Amino acid sequence: MKQDAPLGVFDSGLGGLTVVRALREILPDENIVYLGDTARVPYGTKGPATVIKYALSCARHLVARDVKALVIACNTVSAVAPERLRIELDVPVLGVVEPGAQAAVEATRSGRVGVLATAGTIASGAYPRAVAQLSTRTEVVGQAAPLLVPLAEEGWVEGDVPRQIVRRYIEPLAMAEVDVVVLGCTHYPLLRAVIDQQVRAMIGEHVTVVDSARATGSQVREFLHSRNLARPRGAGGGLVGLLVTDMPHRFREVASRFLGGDVGEVEQVDL
Amino acid sequence: MKQDAPLGVFDSGLGGLTVVRALREILPDENIVYLGDTARVPYGTKGPATVIKYALSCARHLVARDVKALVIACNTVSAVAPERLRIELDVPVLGVVEPGAQAAVEATRSGRVGVLATAGTIASGAYPRAVAQLSTRTEVVGQAAPLLVPLAEEGWVEGDVPRQIVRRYIEPLAMAEVDVVVLGCTHYPLLRAVIDQQVRAMIGEHVTVVDSARATGSQVREFLHSRNLARPRGAGGGLVGLLVTDMPHRFREVASRFLGGDVGEVEQVDL
Repeated sequence: MKQDAPLGVFDSGLGGLTVVRALREILPDENIVYLGDTARVPYGTKGPATVIKYALSCARHLVARDVKALVIACNTVSAVAPERLRIELDVPVLGVVEPGAQAAVEATRSGRVGVLATAGTIASGAYPRAVAQLSTRTEVVGQAAPLLVPLAEEGWVEGDVPRQIVRRYIEPLAMAEVDVVVLGCTHYPLLRAVIDQQVRAMIGEHVTVVDSARATGSQVREFLHSRNLARPRGAGGGLVGLLVTDMPHRFREVASRFLGGDVGEVEQVDL
Repeated sequence: MKQDAPLGVFDSGLGGLTVVRALREILPDENIVYLGDTARVPYGTKGPATVIKYALSCARHLVARDVKALVIACNTVSAVAPERLRIELDVPVLGVVEPGAQAAVEATRSGRVGVLATAGTIASGAYPRAVAQLSTRTEVVGQAAPLLVPLAEEGWVEGDVPRQIVRRYIEPLAMAEVDVVVLGCTHYPLLRAVIDQQVRAMIGEHVTVVDSARATGSQVREFLHSRNLARPRGAGGGLVGLLVTDMPHRFREVASRFLGGDVGEVEQVDL
């Protein structure tokens, strides 16, 4: 039965776990298979052709495990690869850029939206494109924030250094007087406390910070219900299977801390 | 003629250019083919099996281009892969760990040597092993410095943030009262000014900072002369061919700035 099949979720590393956390809260009956491409992390500094190649190998691995839909839990991949994945694979593909753009357009009053993301996502122009399809009166100010992924991957998420790095990236958004800041990379919610604090201090209390992980969770729910693909409520489920391409032990520790409770064995796969 | 063949040099990204720069100063007649695995950078956060797999694919590519010797311009690879490369490939293999360890043993008076390196290099224990083979009275204090590679790759090499990040990594070495600090990653010379400044300020003026790139250059010269593999003096040469696995345009800019003058086309290869 297609409804009983798991959702396949993939990311370049551990950042996509923020999407898994949101999916578990919003869709507690779904089972999830998560693949983190920890051998090739980060994607955000890489060119489109390389990102597409890596994304295809991750996606094919999950399709071979009979997932009912693919959730791209990585903004860099969502920015450059979804069309190609839809052409090559016989399964619905959902990304994180469009839900984040939609939440931003709904939240802005001033019509100026800031996006923090990797160099790859900013260079792709994916957010301005997604926003332009939803609103002709919303301007996007993109800011590449390349050090946030390594900070999050290392767990260095509080103190003076993360604060100063975040300040450097928020400054141009403050100058542009945005009233929404989109966390355009699924790693960034790991730095949420510092980002919130600096956004409030440097731009103002009125600013909305959009977590594209949560926005994506809501869109996945809508999608499953509209296609009659959701598992029935109370049918059990809520299992998460974790796959990585490198360092399963370290990933298990981080994932346990991050998702709460023991996450079981992490399987290493070779792509 | 074997003497006329180029040296093959490879690294996970652009950090190995510090070794190329040293080789050009020390061996101006040699031609060099450099391969930067920019699609899979960084290696320092990855496990040994993955690093060995990637290193083998880089090394095989250079061997197919008829290099006379392979220089591993990456501490992470030098820490875990040289034996495997020597077994699999029919070409001399030189790493960066042993020359750095030797320079450190020669420089220390107190017998306490600090090593800044990636998490992978520190976890491998390669520096303590290399130092133990040269001196039984020298203690190695290792410090993983995971944010220095992304800082160097991004070119964020001066100002308060690099200074504070460097301070955090130097502090345990200052507590241990080392009198030598080895730059145990070929990216770190890009941050040399900040590192020198903080080492002087936090430990003292007497401390020697060992650049393993330069130490490696000297060892490669000795090796070539001892095997009669060096090109004759004044025979021309000094050419550098650059190969990368991703983002050739960006690499060309950085390499030009770094090596001085135009470096010509950067070729993209698929490993």
